[in-house]
Amino acid sequence: MWYVNHSSMGKMILSKTEIIYPQKHQLRIRVAYAGINRTDVYQLQGLYRPPKNANPVLGLEVSGFVDAVGDDVPKELLGKRVCALVNGGGYSEYVVCFLGSCLIIPDEVLLSVAAGIPEAWFTAALFLHYIRPLSRGDRVIIHSILANVSRAAAMLSQWVGSSVWGTVGSAKKVDISPILPKENVFCRDLEDWDQSLIKASNGGVDVIFDVVGAATFSANSRVIGMNGTWLMVGFLSGAQLSKASLAPILLKQVTLRGATMRSQPKDVVGTIRNWLDTQWKSGLQLPDTVWLNHIFEFNQANEAHEKLMGSETVGKIVLQISSDEK
Amino acid sequence: MWYVNHSSMGKMILSKTEIIYPQKHQLRIRVAYAGINRTDVYQLQGLYRPPKNANPVLGLEVSGFVDAVGDDVPKELLGKRVCALVNGGGYSEYVVCFLGSCLIIPDEVLLSVAAGIPEAWFTAALFLHYIRPLSRGDRVIIHSILANVSRAAAMLSQWVGSSVWGTVGSAKKVDISPILPKENVFCRDLEDWDQSLIKASNGGVDVIFDVVGAATFSANSRVIGMNGTWLMVGFLSGAQLSKASLAPILLKQVTLRGATMRSQPKDVVGTIRNWLDTQWKSGLQLPDTVWLNHIFEFNQANEAHEKLMGSETVGKIVLQISSDEK
Repeated sequence: MWYVNHSSMGKMILSKTEIIYPQKHQLRIRVAYAGINRTDVYQLQGLYRPPKNANPVLGLEVSGFVDAVGDDVPKELLGKRVCALVNGGGYSEYVVCFLGSCLIIPDEVLLSVAAGIPEAWFTAALFLHYIRPLSRGDRVIIHSILANVSRAAAMLSQWVGSSVWGTVGSAKKVDISPILPKENVFCRDLEDWDQSLIKASNGGVDVIFDVVGAATFSANSRVIGMNGTWLMVGFLSGAQLSKASLAPILLKQVTLRGATMRSQPKDVVGTIRNWLDTQWKSGLQLPDTVWLNHIFEFNQANEAHEKLMGSETVGKIVLQISSDEK
Repeated sequence: MWYVNHSSMGKMILSKTEIIYPQKHQLRIRVAYAGINRTDVYQLQGLYRPPKNANPVLGLEVSGFVDAVGDDVPKELLGKRVCALVNGGGYSEYVVCFLGSCLIIPDEVLLSVAAGIPEAWFTAALFLHYIRPLSRGDRVIIHSILANVSRAAAMLSQWVGSSVWGTVGSAKKVDISPILPKENVFCRDLEDWDQSLIKASNGGVDVIFDVVGAATFSANSRVIGMNGTWLMVGFLSGAQLSKASLAPILLKQVTLRGATMRSQPKDVVGTIRNWLDTQWKSGLQLPDTVWLNHIFEFNQANEAHEKLMGSETVGKIVLQISSDEK
């Protein structure tokens, strides 16, 4: 089978390798599309090392057709359209993953769109359903509301009835973030957006969902309310703090929590998958948060990475692996 | 009754006021000794504002005799020797507090020593029993092991069977921290103490109990293990970070948690009190962590504060309120 080989420093080329077979609890997917994530770029650049048991090939999420199943996995799944979180190996014609990380895709959803669902939605649900389950009445701020995972987090928060606000990096982005009403979106380049949020939320928020990192640290310590939970999801602005006070964390009894989807044990992934599946069937529209930015060909992985890391890129970038997809 | 009045900016004088009476669930203590804490000093300096429902008089912990009880509190308690966490008002001849924050003192324990038990032990148990219950096999680092609360935390950790290491600020303090074996105590002025701890703990610790704050932030992010819990208890070194990376918090899935004993609801205090009472009766020697540094007279509160904030002060400083104590 063909796959994207990145052994040659910093560049990716298509290579051939042996096909692999699903083990117990696993299935194999004939990949239609693979979603591209920043982690893939960091891994290529040597800035991120995948876990020991991971497939060393890039690609953490795919859509496609079930093509083979492990002994204990229902044969009825063969041929079904699925999207899945995979432990590496998404940039390939075939990938093996656990049944518990797959979601069946409804007929009306495009496979190109479905490839953008797993990373964003599993991560949003890891933080807002598994680590800090949100509910009606919770007040939530979601930073960088145009990021894929933040859009999923915002929709999930609204779905469970929380009060949700968002931030964007600049004023011109307020209008392109329609998941939230315009009046609930603050631009972080306005000096006192944090004071506006404290006022709007009547004293501060219960939960912060932050993909920005260093640049939002100090504002977070101001907008978090008593007993609040501050979720550290990513570092779009980097992870290096220059000046900050720890006092609000102690005095407001804050819980600050970092986590990565990839280091979750199988049973946690399964729990999250089941919850997402149930919500999707009950009307939560996972595909609505996937805004396709660009579809690249299988042999254009280098261009896809470049596009992803370009400043101001909004929306999902996917690789089209096979050409006979629906 | 006499009490320490600090209405005149920055200085304390003895004044007279009306005696108060216990309400439901409460009792009144004729105070023998009041423990002095940094929070009292900060409150006097205007750097810390007590909660709205608090007694504005200084003093957060006392020992003494039960002198009056609320309607629903057993009369048998009258005359008993107790120590208690109080919501302000400890620097007084009499103070009212909730039954659920009192511990009966065994006959052989001095009241002067008992006055140093509540703040340290309730705080240690808040973090290590209530927020992050320790158990056998947990690996724990306790910073500034000579601080009153850290000594209580170290003894509590050993009591439940955890593996415990400690730090001190300078090499000369290693020998005066006998709660832990000498080889388990690191000096933070040695460059690679954190690497030694990572080695000793076989990859990093599960729990950090930190009263130091800014100065230990970066080392904490190195010594914390996967899925570790980083407890923020105090800021002996201040709360202002200058340079630090947030990356380890995300990549190691750290939970960072701040809390203050004073903002705990009554039922949480009661839960902690009951646990401490049970452990004490089972052999955990709470008084052993209280090393008296100095006993000041009731009218020497100013001198007591000065002594507490002197550099290198180790051990507990208490005010002797009544002179007929045992």
